[in-house]
Amino acid sequence: MNGPDFEKCELIPAIAQDADTGDVLMMAYMNKVSYEETLKTGRVCYYSRSRKKLWRKGEESGNVQELKEIFFDCDADTLLVKVNQIGGAACHKGYRSCFFRKIDPNTGTTEIVEERVFDPSEVYKKSE
Amino acid sequence: MNGPDFEKCELIPAIAQDADTGDVLMMAYMNKVSYEETLKTGRVCYYSRSRKKLWRKGEESGNVQELKEIFFDCDADTLLVKVNQIGGAACHKGYRSCFFRKIDPNTGTTEIVEERVFDPSEVYKKSE
Repeated sequence: MNGPDFEKCELIPAIAQDADTGDVLMMAYMNKVSYEETLKTGRVCYYSRSRKKLWRKGEESGNVQELKEIFFDCDADTLLVKVNQIGGAACHKGYRSCFFRKIDPNTGTTEIVEERVFDPSEVYKKSE
Repeated sequence: MNGPDFEKCELIPAIAQDADTGDVLMMAYMNKVSYEETLKTGRVCYYSRSRKKLWRKGEESGNVQELKEIFFDCDADTLLVKVNQIGGAACHKGYRSCFFRKIDPNTGTTEIVEERVFDPSEVYKKSE
């Protein structure tokens, strides 16, 4: 088996991790075309399930992800990309990581545990 | 919005990260029942898509995952669990992380970049 198996799964989850800090930034999906573009260009490209097209991360916000290393898992159906996150924020809501909300296991309540790096309304042309 | 949205997605991807080292160990899925069990017991429980039942991680190998922290993402459809990985290996193939294979972006070739922590044939009753 040589690399992720896009015949088994057309869309493969890809976890983006900050190459320097180890923080998990986000998870999105890649299809074969976006995977190959990522390898070729060194900039992470996902496939947007909602927009049904290639999603060159940062194409609107400028917060691109430079590929540092890429791994695939034992079942060849998940990818791990280690990246240099330009702009310091991966999340479209302006946080460094999309996982900016923590759950209290005892109560199930949640709280925001990060500071916003940017204001989404200033970065994106249209408001959320 | 309060926590992961299981009405939107019955099965939600859950990324397991070593709480001490920051290494991404694996990705699996949770349904609402496994999520609630994880919060209640403090041991990570997934839902196995292949076996179609709750998967109490480590129930066969002993390599359970103790829950340290749990986060959910901006879209409420992905979880991040920070864990203490008992036995030092999350992967059923005996590696610390399921992401033990690295892809060379220039050639697309892959190589194993970790040492095995255990021999799967000794840990699991039946061979792979």
